[in-house]
Amino acid sequence: MTDEVFMREALLLAAEAADAGEVPVGAVVVRGETVVGRGRNRREACKNALAHAELEAIDDACRTLGGWRLWDCTLYVTLEPCPMCAGAILNARVRRVVFGAGDPKAGSLESVQRMYDLPYTHKPQIDGGCLQAECAQILHDFFADMRRGVRKAPVNPNWKKL
Amino acid sequence: MTDEVFMREALLLAAEAADAGEVPVGAVVVRGETVVGRGRNRREACKNALAHAELEAIDDACRTLGGWRLWDCTLYVTLEPCPMCAGAILNARVRRVVFGAGDPKAGSLESVQRMYDLPYTHKPQIDGGCLQAECAQILHDFFADMRRGVRKAPVNPNWKKL
Repeated sequence: MTDEVFMREALLLAAEAADAGEVPVGAVVVRGETVVGRGRNRREACKNALAHAELEAIDDACRTLGGWRLWDCTLYVTLEPCPMCAGAILNARVRRVVFGAGDPKAGSLESVQRMYDLPYTHKPQIDGGCLQAECAQILHDFFADMRRGVRKAPVNPNWKKL
Repeated sequence: MTDEVFMREALLLAAEAADAGEVPVGAVVVRGETVVGRGRNRREACKNALAHAELEAIDDACRTLGGWRLWDCTLYVTLEPCPMCAGAILNARVRRVVFGAGDPKAGSLESVQRMYDLPYTHKPQIDGGCLQAECAQILHDFFADMRRGVRKAPVNPNWKKL
């Protein structure tokens, strides 16, 4: 199957995030022709800075496969990974990363830095720009709706006083 | 209280990891003078590439405080953070990072790269070398024991055939 098929799976998860009031980013981990991990952004719902789509998809894949090394897997994500997620992809030994839209603020494969050009012990293959227009459009529409008040901004977390 | 007091808390968690057959790395998140998050390496037990000490400590702190922004917190970790954990510290807006031993293979604050010198939207303060000798020794002893066969290597994950 083509990369676009799996990126459309990731886009469905991004749309699910948008419906839940989260910045729409989705990811899937694929082994052979099987999706073994799915994830989407849940930062506001989980009130957790770690709840990015890629981490959820990697976590799901590790559970599905019963191990932490995803040697023979490809990760598809609608937005260029941030440094945390780019690092998680290294740690999980993911073989290949396919992303959609670039992220000039936090993207760490091509934008703010090219992390996989550095001398880490693993070097995933990168393919950017898969369904780029659709992956960028879903983000654009989400933020436009937020500005117009069609979507409510997520509720601010209740910061507990200790 | 001094940084050394909190680094000793992190060292206790590293020792707990070693006792469980995991590479001994520990971390705590501190707000004011209170530990609000604790974590240790659990990669082998969880069979999960994401189960690093810093991620567990940040996750714990987000739960304790009820929000994803750790603006006024310091993270103490016995080993220089890898790119995933350095990125998680950015995402969680941690104000300051104190680490013990440097990590020439994966350390992403000073060794393989200086991530916080790049134009990300948050820039934590870094203080390296806190209880450096003790933080390095616990790792050295763990790997020496592994080589001598005093400690068993963690069981390999059972990679599932799909």
